[in-house]
Amino acid sequence: MIEAVPDLLIAPIVRAALAEDLGRAGDVTAQACIPADADLACTFGARRAGVVAGLACARLALAELDPHAVFEPRVSDGDVVAPGTVLAAVRGNARAVLTAERTALNLLGRLCGVATLTREYVDAVAGTRARITDTRKTTPGLRALEKYAVRCGGGVNHRFGLDDAILIKDNHVAACGSVGEAVRRAKAFAGHLMKVEVEVDSLDQLHEALTERPDVIMLDNFSLADLAEAVRITAGRVVLEASGGVTLETVRAIAETGVDVISVGALTHSAKVLDIGLDAV
Amino acid sequence: MIEAVPDLLIAPIVRAALAEDLGRAGDVTAQACIPADADLACTFGARRAGVVAGLACARLALAELDPHAVFEPRVSDGDVVAPGTVLAAVRGNARAVLTAERTALNLLGRLCGVATLTREYVDAVAGTRARITDTRKTTPGLRALEKYAVRCGGGVNHRFGLDDAILIKDNHVAACGSVGEAVRRAKAFAGHLMKVEVEVDSLDQLHEALTERPDVIMLDNFSLADLAEAVRITAGRVVLEASGGVTLETVRAIAETGVDVISVGALTHSAKVLDIGLDAV
Amino acid sequence: MIEAVPDLLIAPIVRAALAEDLGRAGDVTAQACIPADADLACTFGARRAGVVAGLACARLALAELDPHAVFEPRVSDGDVVAPGTVLAAVRGNARAVLTAERTALNLLGRLCGVATLTREYVDAVAGTRARITDTRKTTPGLRALEKYAVRCGGGVNHRFGLDDAILIKDNHVAACGSVGEAVRRAKAFAGHLMKVEVEVDSLDQLHEALTERPDVIMLDNFSLADLAEAVRITAGRVVLEASGGVTLETVRAIAETGVDVISVGALTHSAKVLDIGLDAV
Amino acid sequence: MIEAVPDLLIAPIVRAALAEDLGRAGDVTAQACIPADADLACTFGARRAGVVAGLACARLALAELDPHAVFEPRVSDGDVVAPGTVLAAVRGNARAVLTAERTALNLLGRLCGVATLTREYVDAVAGTRARITDTRKTTPGLRALEKYAVRCGGGVNHRFGLDDAILIKDNHVAACGSVGEAVRRAKAFAGHLMKVEVEVDSLDQLHEALTERPDVIMLDNFSLADLAEAVRITAGRVVLEASGGVTLETVRAIAETGVDVISVGALTHSAKVLDIGLDAV
Amino acid sequence: MIEAVPDLLIAPIVRAALAEDLGRAGDVTAQACIPADADLACTFGARRAGVVAGLACARLALAELDPHAVFEPRVSDGDVVAPGTVLAAVRGNARAVLTAERTALNLLGRLCGVATLTREYVDAVAGTRARITDTRKTTPGLRALEKYAVRCGGGVNHRFGLDDAILIKDNHVAACGSVGEAVRRAKAFAGHLMKVEVEVDSLDQLHEALTERPDVIMLDNFSLADLAEAVRITAGRVVLEASGGVTLETVRAIAETGVDVISVGALTHSAKVLDIGLDAV
Amino acid sequence: MIEAVPDLLIAPIVRAALAEDLGRAGDVTAQACIPADADLACTFGARRAGVVAGLACARLALAELDPHAVFEPRVSDGDVVAPGTVLAAVRGNARAVLTAERTALNLLGRLCGVATLTREYVDAVAGTRARITDTRKTTPGLRALEKYAVRCGGGVNHRFGLDDAILIKDNHVAACGSVGEAVRRAKAFAGHLMKVEVEVDSLDQLHEALTERPDVIMLDNFSLADLAEAVRITAGRVVLEASGGVTLETVRAIAETGVDVISVGALTHSAKVLDIGLDAV
Repeated sequence: MIEAVPDLLIAPIVRAALAEDLGRAGDVTAQACIPADADLACTFGARRAGVVAGLACARLALAELDPHAVFEPRVSDGDVVAPGTVLAAVRGNARAVLTAERTALNLLGRLCGVATLTREYVDAVAGTRARITDTRKTTPGLRALEKYAVRCGGGVNHRFGLDDAILIKDNHVAACGSVGEAVRRAKAFAGHLMKVEVEVDSLDQLHEALTERPDVIMLDNFSLADLAEAVRITAGRVVLEASGGVTLETVRAIAETGVDVISVGALTHSAKVLDIGLDAV
Repeated sequence: MIEAVPDLLIAPIVRAALAEDLGRAGDVTAQACIPADADLACTFGARRAGVVAGLACARLALAELDPHAVFEPRVSDGDVVAPGTVLAAVRGNARAVLTAERTALNLLGRLCGVATLTREYVDAVAGTRARITDTRKTTPGLRALEKYAVRCGGGVNHRFGLDDAILIKDNHVAACGSVGEAVRRAKAFAGHLMKVEVEVDSLDQLHEALTERPDVIMLDNFSLADLAEAVRITAGRVVLEASGGVTLETVRAIAETGVDVISVGALTHSAKVLDIGLDAV
Repeated sequence: MIEAVPDLLIAPIVRAALAEDLGRAGDVTAQACIPADADLACTFGARRAGVVAGLACARLALAELDPHAVFEPRVSDGDVVAPGTVLAAVRGNARAVLTAERTALNLLGRLCGVATLTREYVDAVAGTRARITDTRKTTPGLRALEKYAVRCGGGVNHRFGLDDAILIKDNHVAACGSVGEAVRRAKAFAGHLMKVEVEVDSLDQLHEALTERPDVIMLDNFSLADLAEAVRITAGRVVLEASGGVTLETVRAIAETGVDVISVGALTHSAKVLDIGLDAV
Repeated sequence: MIEAVPDLLIAPIVRAALAEDLGRAGDVTAQACIPADADLACTFGARRAGVVAGLACARLALAELDPHAVFEPRVSDGDVVAPGTVLAAVRGNARAVLTAERTALNLLGRLCGVATLTREYVDAVAGTRARITDTRKTTPGLRALEKYAVRCGGGVNHRFGLDDAILIKDNHVAACGSVGEAVRRAKAFAGHLMKVEVEVDSLDQLHEALTERPDVIMLDNFSLADLAEAVRITAGRVVLEASGGVTLETVRAIAETGVDVISVGALTHSAKVLDIGLDAV
Repeated sequence: MIEAVPDLLIAPIVRAALAEDLGRAGDVTAQACIPADADLACTFGARRAGVVAGLACARLALAELDPHAVFEPRVSDGDVVAPGTVLAAVRGNARAVLTAERTALNLLGRLCGVATLTREYVDAVAGTRARITDTRKTTPGLRALEKYAVRCGGGVNHRFGLDDAILIKDNHVAACGSVGEAVRRAKAFAGHLMKVEVEVDSLDQLHEALTERPDVIMLDNFSLADLAEAVRITAGRVVLEASGGVTLETVRAIAETGVDVISVGALTHSAKVLDIGLDAV
Repeated sequence: MIEAVPDLLIAPIVRAALAEDLGRAGDVTAQACIPADADLACTFGARRAGVVAGLACARLALAELDPHAVFEPRVSDGDVVAPGTVLAAVRGNARAVLTAERTALNLLGRLCGVATLTREYVDAVAGTRARITDTRKTTPGLRALEKYAVRCGGGVNHRFGLDDAILIKDNHVAACGSVGEAVRRAKAFAGHLMKVEVEVDSLDQLHEALTERPDVIMLDNFSLADLAEAVRITAGRVVLEASGGVTLETVRAIAETGVDVISVGALTHSAKVLDIGLDAV
């Protein structure tokens, strides 16, 4: 089972999303057409196959509008579901259900989309040592949720932001004068619970980086041959991450070079939403 | 030229996105590797062809971290650009530029992606009377920006939320007993500056709806033949919106039936980010 | 029955109002004089005749301070009440009740005041086709609640802000060169769910406006004779709104000219609070 | 000259008011009709006589939308102005000026209205020892500004909230058993910079209160004869505040009884907005 | 029993503290190691002797993460406890308990520390007329809670901020020209519920201040002899506050000079946290 | 030179601290006594020896109230200063300077206090391999600033919160059944940029932990002998952190056992504020 982030972190996102949709006057259609005390029972159903992530968003969206509403999940985050699968059954004030619908679906569909795409990548590298990881190319405001969805899809998370690990890129190297100097400065700065990663774009830079023993080396846009050579050179002394334009077509071959981690920006920046609907029972 | 939303509305989004990325400690890599007083000149460049939208996000992201930074746009929102086009030149404190980079790119890439996809749909219906419009299937927190990007791509905006127009769907009709009764309730509720739209799923419902004269009728998942018949029946008395699973492959034929508006959820829920990079000069 | 805006939109306003009154240290009088576990039963009572609006504000103010408090409304929003009518009975922690009192009364009294004044205008035009509507001259921070109170008093709502309808005024016309050009630009900009209104200050401008078919034309400070002539000329093709210095003394005559809507700034900017008290049982 | 509250306290109120008016999409009329780079020069002018209060609100509203706009006040807060007086001249981006207009006027008109009404009460008691003070019957969210406007009108401020002074009312007395016991508890609780006031509704209660030496005694709904008698009995030992249904008709006679302070709820809950307009130059 | 500030004021502080600790991804250790549905029973125990303050913070921290958790206080705020005393027993979701632990302890330990140190000062002056009071040298963001802790320790509160009382210091005197003029301006400004205090640094200034009859005079860094002389001169006409570098070693002698109030910055700026632990049952 | 966290992260803390102090009405003493347009030049001076940290807080506090004020630092964060050293010279609007004073001093004094205490610990272990690190026992709301102050004092930072590293404690071990199982679960959960630390309380547990190769092992409350033995056993394979009741008296001996890191809660929970004053020039 996938372990969820606490409601405390999700609720503000859900509340802001509802507020954005409700605007100043709330759901005028519901106010005009639905009696204030009517009830409604519905189900959230997947219209395509996919991986579930973010059921808590739908639950919280409904709870914000009707604290007495019932939300019964029928699957768990991380589950692979077939088209037509009921994800959850809900019952509550009719206006609340209809007002929450779009916010719930926008969040749930997006997160399931991320989980589903991640699962495709994870499955593509099955049997290799490579783990699939995400990037910081996430939707502004939704990073924690999207990174959670990556875990639901079987991936692992890269750093969460600029502050929880050091990742030295070309501009940092340029400012320091060399890869080696950059890693040395980083290691002097980092506390004992902060990892240091450095990006290299050639085997020469890899050699230089290895002498400074960072925790991770990112091999940026390496050819398959160079990736394999990098694995051979490194010989397990440092974790190796392959990065740069990875697609479902190329990921298997990359994994087979023996790298430890493959980072894929598309997981969060180009996942298609999973088509999910809310249907009255 | 496309007219932008005021900075007052964009700045909180940019600030929240930066805060999400900076976390508690800020950009530790920049702190470790870049001198506090170093400067850096870079350009934002499009790596693929597309339509520009959201330059203000990049400008504001940089300004939040270095109020004295210079941001010189080289193109305008709404412009169609070729691969390799420089979108803007920036110059400022090196740490500020590098820290703002990902937030700027995440917002700019996403908005350019929406504008680019919108433009593809708009071009596909060129010469017909149909206008391309968006839906409420937007990214939570970014609705105003994504709807603006749709305008940059040549589209027009559907309602912005649940409160600025009435849109009667099947569940509302069910609660009211009939399409006619639902529209009557809606018109009694609505002030003189609020439009009323009703969704119908058959020509029979269309006839019923027409007798109540809503401002707009949404034809949901109509066949091409039924769309054409609906246009004929309506004879310009009410604005007609085609909706439901529209793709780049199907949109031209739909437009040629003579409908006024075609709404496309994919504009915002499934646009690919435009690949944009920040390169040191 | 009047349909309320959801608690989700009201609660932040109530919470901010309580926080403003509680300051840093809370209700020091209650802390000094009332035992922490004492209970109190009270009633909210109208001391003048009026129209009820905003009971939810009083309920939520109390609930914020004592989630277990009981709030029993005895009337509904929109009801016309006589002096001495009990609006609601409450029972809860004594400190909570007394601390919430002023916030509850400040909001409730103001909203009932708006509803009451609106009802006077609505009654004054009874039997005519004219509907009474509000303006954007609302209390900063309370627009949604005050517009709701207008509905409770039998009025309809004008636009809620600068973004949900286009309203072209003299400065916009000046920038465009003519009324006609302004309306054309507006209609090109507006999506299919956004209405366009234009303000005119003479019958000549009315003629010009009519050729462009906006959704609504505002007749600003027209004489009664000109209003009647405008109605005759327009002949139902466009909704007509009379505006400008309308008072309870003048509104009936204006309505009898045949205009569709009369907007009254006084509804929200000059309503007297309804005198309501909280009395221990 | 009246001393203003710092911008730091006003800016969030102005920003929230603008955000409420701008909604999700901003000023669509300005976007549709006014070129992005047009400039506009206008004046804020009083259309009725009154007392000025809150110019900073207008200045900040404009500055939020155009940081380079020029705002030149022609009068100061606290000044008495004749109809037609120019309060300030502004010049800036045309869209910014027109978008800020309503927010500026809503705040400025309301605060000038409070100051103007306060000045009427203050003038009515000229030559007596009585000072005019406000209550907590203020607009939720605007208390600090409205209390400032009272000062602009020549009044003094009562407590700002529930936490900066103790005010014992009938329900507190009931919980304590007697006026004397209530004052004793309050004085034991209060620090050396917190004043204690107690409300009495009879001369008997006044005697009881005087023995405990609170800082202030509120004489609630006393007849003129009883007010005079209370002044005689108290003989300057404690500050006396007259309260309850005070009007412009009754305030002079109340002041002439010799009380120190007269509190008037109407100053903030029933002031009419001062009619102010923005006119293009 | 000490009377607590309402949850409404504490909850935002607790929520912000939790959010600061949870960051973007929440408690990753708990997610990795503790089953989502495990329960845990623990006790908060004092490891040193001290005075209790802030139990509500611990209760609310837990409730934010598990609304169904049970929190049973075994002591009350203001109680003096021996080492080993159980302060409260808790039982709830195991992840919630462990995630809330540090936030609860950080707040509770700090507030108990303030209360404990205050009690030491209060005990040191037992039998004199002097009351111990705090200053504005509090932790940013925690002023209301720390001032509450001072009350739990038997102290009384000085002003809560810059706005609830006037305190004239040397720079204000310099701007006014003299102590007398400064007090006169202050009394003209202050409403009838706002006290005026003035700081003097010599017996000469004391004489000058006394002629203007402020509510309180602060004797700043007076010698014991001068304090005694000041008490003699003042003869009870004005409240006297001794201030400046007061320590546990000096406070008794200061109190015995007969001053009314002694303010001690150390209460809040230099209290040691009370060592409290959370132990599984 | 110490590298500061960006203003973007500090400004909200400073703004909230100012708002807490200003309350509803702002600095009433300054309004009463200081002309609105007076200027004032002052210096921030250290009254005790210490290490500087947090000058940006003072600069931002002043800038919030007077954007045109001049703030000239005379030392840098991280500098060791003697009593009497001028830290910065300021010049600006007199009210702004006096209003900002307490907020600036509260933040600056606290951060300098943390840096100063840290420096004492760092100096105490000079010449050993041990680095001094902090804990999560920080002031709620100020964690990022206090951790920055630790760096200013020469320390390194432990994890910033619950989400940026895994730290397995006794309760987690209990839930997992064994130290080994807990570390295995943690390593399976953690991404490649997240470190895993486990707390052990005996040499037996150390052996068990070592077989799972976490990144760091915390030796909790080990005797000096056991620390030395742990260092011998570990032989550099894993980073070792000594923890538990470390004081200035004990830290040198602990460091001499050869551990890599010593964590000290007192750095943030029990540092005394550095005495800093603002003096008019």
